[in-house]
Amino acid sequence: MVGRLLISADSHVMEPPDLWTAGLSPHLRAQGPRLEHRDGVACLMVEDTVVRRFPALPGPAGERGILHGASDPAGRLGDLDKDGVWAEVIYPNLAFFCCYHIRSVELQVETAHVYNDWVARQFIDASQRLAPVAVLPVNDVAAAVGELWRAAKRGFRGAMLPAHVDHRPYNDPAYEPLWGAAADLHLPLTFHAGTGRTQTPAHGPGGAVINYVVTLGGPMETVAYLCASGVLERHPGLRVVMVECGSGWLAWVLHAMDDAYREHHMFVRPKLPLLPSEYFRRQGAVTFQRDPVGLATLPFTGDRCLMWGSDYPHPEGTWPHSQEVLARQLDGLPEETIERIVSRNAAELYRFRLPAEAA
Amino acid sequence: MVGRLLISADSHVMEPPDLWTAGLSPHLRAQGPRLEHRDGVACLMVEDTVVRRFPALPGPAGERGILHGASDPAGRLGDLDKDGVWAEVIYPNLAFFCCYHIRSVELQVETAHVYNDWVARQFIDASQRLAPVAVLPVNDVAAAVGELWRAAKRGFRGAMLPAHVDHRPYNDPAYEPLWGAAADLHLPLTFHAGTGRTQTPAHGPGGAVINYVVTLGGPMETVAYLCASGVLERHPGLRVVMVECGSGWLAWVLHAMDDAYREHHMFVRPKLPLLPSEYFRRQGAVTFQRDPVGLATLPFTGDRCLMWGSDYPHPEGTWPHSQEVLARQLDGLPEETIERIVSRNAAELYRFRLPAEAA
Repeated sequence: MVGRLLISADSHVMEPPDLWTAGLSPHLRAQGPRLEHRDGVACLMVEDTVVRRFPALPGPAGERGILHGASDPAGRLGDLDKDGVWAEVIYPNLAFFCCYHIRSVELQVETAHVYNDWVARQFIDASQRLAPVAVLPVNDVAAAVGELWRAAKRGFRGAMLPAHVDHRPYNDPAYEPLWGAAADLHLPLTFHAGTGRTQTPAHGPGGAVINYVVTLGGPMETVAYLCASGVLERHPGLRVVMVECGSGWLAWVLHAMDDAYREHHMFVRPKLPLLPSEYFRRQGAVTFQRDPVGLATLPFTGDRCLMWGSDYPHPEGTWPHSQEVLARQLDGLPEETIERIVSRNAAELYRFRLPAEAA
Repeated sequence: MVGRLLISADSHVMEPPDLWTAGLSPHLRAQGPRLEHRDGVACLMVEDTVVRRFPALPGPAGERGILHGASDPAGRLGDLDKDGVWAEVIYPNLAFFCCYHIRSVELQVETAHVYNDWVARQFIDASQRLAPVAVLPVNDVAAAVGELWRAAKRGFRGAMLPAHVDHRPYNDPAYEPLWGAAADLHLPLTFHAGTGRTQTPAHGPGGAVINYVVTLGGPMETVAYLCASGVLERHPGLRVVMVECGSGWLAWVLHAMDDAYREHHMFVRPKLPLLPSEYFRRQGAVTFQRDPVGLATLPFTGDRCLMWGSDYPHPEGTWPHSQEVLARQLDGLPEETIERIVSRNAAELYRFRLPAEAA
């Protein structure tokens, strides 16, 4: 046992299957997120695309291995108590897969709006221990800024963008108002592995393993975009988090960015006052579940940019053994480093108040 | 000083600018690799595409900072002696950038053929200390197998494939004859970072740093394809090398592959007798110039899959300070590990004979 209360910086909900077919404006429902059954498989559709196939109908307790706390806050808090987890940063499940596949600006804005309203009602209103992040409709930057302001007023303590953007990379000046608004509002922007239109490129033999590596590694590129383009330099109040990507690649990416900055200086634009890695150490973080490589490379990353996440209620998550899984991983690290990784970094970033005394 | 002779597992040549315009069959020359001057910039063209812009005309001593040994074997051996380097595995420069952009099968086959003939004449015939790798025309697998056989007869001790393939990923059964032939011929197949059609995606602010991270990280995906799809399981004699990609990401990729294999076992096909990481430790290697993260994570990777490379004669390489650069990096490691990284792994893989006594 770690012997202190934990904060999971990466957990998920399960939305009601009819959230958008009931909640969107009538003229958008036929193209909005919906489950269609084909040959006994529930397909998550958006616009004309199947974005995900579920072996069993998702629902409060319908997806294989899904726990009741997925959509019920009381059940969730009970599950957290069993696991020694004080608080959670919460990501979507259906919205996670479909929202960033949407091409229509209007549909994406309303899809995000409907999800954010539901998750706020269901979880923000239930307990300050539950901090869902708002989904931002990034196809239109002005709309994303508007939703960020709405989210801040509604009590959200973070907001998410896709880890991968095909058409407008994160060094595009068009995003400036969004970076500025997030800094002003003190809302961290998070990039969850697996979000975005282009994902899971591999098919055939080895596909599951290949796609896992590619998906988890996706945020490496995002780190480079944010650090090297000057986004973090121009917005020192902006905090960014790469989620469920593991932490074992971070030391190498920090080193590689600095190596490029120094060795290819003749090609480097803009020149920045700090090295790329210094911006990430100052303003960035990553979350992991189990990552011995990330812990072994703490001397390179420091302990202020690592946060643990349980991935509750997903079957590959650490519930209900989070305390033991963490104790095994963190054995031998300094107490202050353990505290930072299991709770303090997340508490500071997402403004959680832990009870004064650990469990 | 490391105090022993080194083998660079990653060096380069510079081809004569007219290699293909003079050497290809007449009907292919207009579409083959060629330098065209546009507004004072030398553009490397192939088919109808500019694949690279050079700020100064490349040539034996024309590219900024290029050394004379780039195309002259006697000058090269002299430069190696100055640097305390006994032997080199040698990659192309112009062919490196252009060969895997070619769409035509016929043109790619002849382009590879012309390069391989030139580099063999120039370097294989000069000294056993110089081991160029053959370029394989991968658009047509049967042609690649034919060129591999021809390369083996001509004295090549390795052959290269693109690190990234767009249209036929490395888990495609079409490659089976190539894997089998490389194993039979005891020729390592190498995947140099930056080769392939889809590269350097970033433009604008931070582009140089972003593209460096993306390019160096490219071979991660290739490692996953080769380990998880069963290629290395089916061909235990096949050896594969990821080149100039650094080594700091390897520990994480090995961990992530095994994590996926275990945690997503319900989706994993094929099931394999060993874990994905075990195949790479048995049959794979990576090369690095300077990579403190890779050296810190040796407990995860072992010392049999790391090889140093100087990148000679590129200006960002370690020449003429390779001994000092390595001594600083390797300080404190066991002698046997140092020997493996600076020479023994490469000597075994590429069949170099070092002089009995170190310098």
